Amino acid sequence: MSGRLVGVGTGPGDPDLLTVKAVRAIESADVVAAFAKRGRVSNARTTIAHLLRPDQVEEALDYPVTTEIDRHHPDYQSQTSAFYDEGAARLARHLDSGRTVAVLSEGDPLFYGSYMHLHVRLAPRYPTEVIPGITAMSGCWSMAGLPLVQGDDVLSVLPGTLEEAELATRLAGTDGAVIMKVGRNLPKIRSALARAGKLADAVYVERGTMASGRSLRLSDKPDDEAPYFALILVPGWSTRP
Amino acid sequence: MSGRLVGVGTGPGDPDLLTVKAVRAIESADVVAAFAKRGRVSNARTTIAHLLRPDQVEEALDYPVTTEIDRHHPDYQSQTSAFYDEGAARLARHLDSGRTVAVLSEGDPLFYGSYMHLHVRLAPRYPTEVIPGITAMSGCWSMAGLPLVQGDDVLSVLPGTLEEAELATRLAGTDGAVIMKVGRNLPKIRSALARAGKLADAVYVERGTMASGRSLRLSDKPDDEAPYFALILVPGWSTRP
Ligand SMILES: C[S@@+](CC[C@H](N)C(=O)[O-])C[C@H]1O[C@@H](n2cnc3c(N)ncnc32)[C@H](O)[C@@H]1O
Ligand SMILES: C[S@@+](CC[C@H](N)C(=O)[O-])C[C@H]1O[C@@H](n2cnc3c(N)ncnc32)[C@H](O)[C@@H]1O
Repeated sequence: MSGRLVGVGTGPGDPDLLTVKAVRAIESADVVAAFAKRGRVSNARTTIAHLLRPDQVEEALDYPVTTEIDRHHPDYQSQTSAFYDEGAARLARHLDSGRTVAVLSEGDPLFYGSYMHLHVRLAPRYPTEVIPGITAMSGCWSMAGLPLVQGDDVLSVLPGTLEEAELATRLAGTDGAVIMKVGRNLPKIRSALARAGKLADAVYVERGTMASGRSLRLSDKPDDEAPYFALILVPGWSTRP
Repeated sequence: MSGRLVGVGTGPGDPDLLTVKAVRAIESADVVAAFAKRGRVSNARTTIAHLLRPDQVEEALDYPVTTEIDRHHPDYQSQTSAFYDEGAARLARHLDSGRTVAVLSEGDPLFYGSYMHLHVRLAPRYPTEVIPGITAMSGCWSMAGLPLVQGDDVLSVLPGTLEEAELATRLAGTDGAVIMKVGRNLPKIRSALARAGKLADAVYVERGTMASGRSLRLSDKPDDEAPYFALILVPGWSTRP
């Protein structure tokens, strides 16, 4: 009997935003795996730390150091691909031994989550379940109390890694928008919002739902420093009654 | 001392997809309010029924019968607006008496949720908290085990109420897509997907995460019958390794 793979969404950071199902899956797993930058603790693991038992096996999936290499360079692609192959093989050994393996994923696993790379490698071979999580964007607009989209509104979710011109065109052509992966892309994102005429509407949220979280109008943010855990919200619902 | 308004996301239907925070907020509320079509029980209320206590006051916010009137007709707008005003006034009386009022919202409250209409009316006047919920789309792609977007992918969330030509253009110009509010819009949505060359990729999910839920390729669905609780997923991540 092979074990079971469970992709577990851990939500945006507040441990109380775990679902009842996620809590149970983590508590009952034999193995708990999490992605992290080398030398750093995974944020998903921090969110669920209170649930871990001493007898559970932990697997840390540490990304290879790739930030110096351009994402579009073949070395980046081959290194990350080898990393996911190796991680999948590591978890497959547990699954072959009949263990239940919970893979933690910040926010929702199948929405820009690293878990997806393991899912496509392992789900065809092992019984697999995915437990959705509160996405970072839901956590952020809830914390900011910002109604995002309603009625016939279109919502565009845009990675901040896109080129400025493409960001500006897409921002101009949508009602609501979420820009993920802010970090060092913030100056470019600010220009794109200005070109689209939406800078005044944009709300910046960093570490949403975490103890250190905060939100403010982007136009009130004096600098362009932003952590990895930051996103931009542009509300739709212009016809609001 | 005025009471507190809490918008509570109840997720897509599976009670185990409530967050720990939502469970606590519902259990500790003095008043629990839910929107419903007249004569029908709210789906959000069904999801949380096991948490209700006999001493909690329930407020049913029954939509006026408006399906016969076109959404863009002034009568529709004035009737629904009067309905939200009246609902807000009803809850305000509880808040003025110092009661905590939890307003249930399917999925996530600030994402196409009726709660938003109460939020804009009450949040400026009363202490308010919004508890995010698992969105219908997260519940559906998790149930289907369908990785949705990754890396530089753009995700477009499109209401099925849009015109066919606009749907087709937007579908053609995005990586991943979610089409909400399927119901009787399914024939039009199917044509729009075909025009965008994406019919073969589309996955249909009805009553996602509920006991009666199911998902299948839209191209395998022989008819165009769809309930209100249905959506269409088009995965991005075409560069999947
Ligand atoms: C690789 S994506 C993961 C998204 C996640 N799977 C989800 O469902 O939201 C990482 C990006 O999510 C956003 N993010 C994640 N957690 C966040 C938080 N607590 N506050 C603000 N942004 C966050 C940031 O934009 C970050 O760059
Ligand atoms: C008014 S919107 C509410 C969206 C909700 N606030 C959310 O966060 O997902 C209603 C639409 O959500 C979708 N929906 C809600 N629950 C669903 C479910 N369990 N399965 C499939 N679609 C669902 C349907 O497309 C429906 O027409």
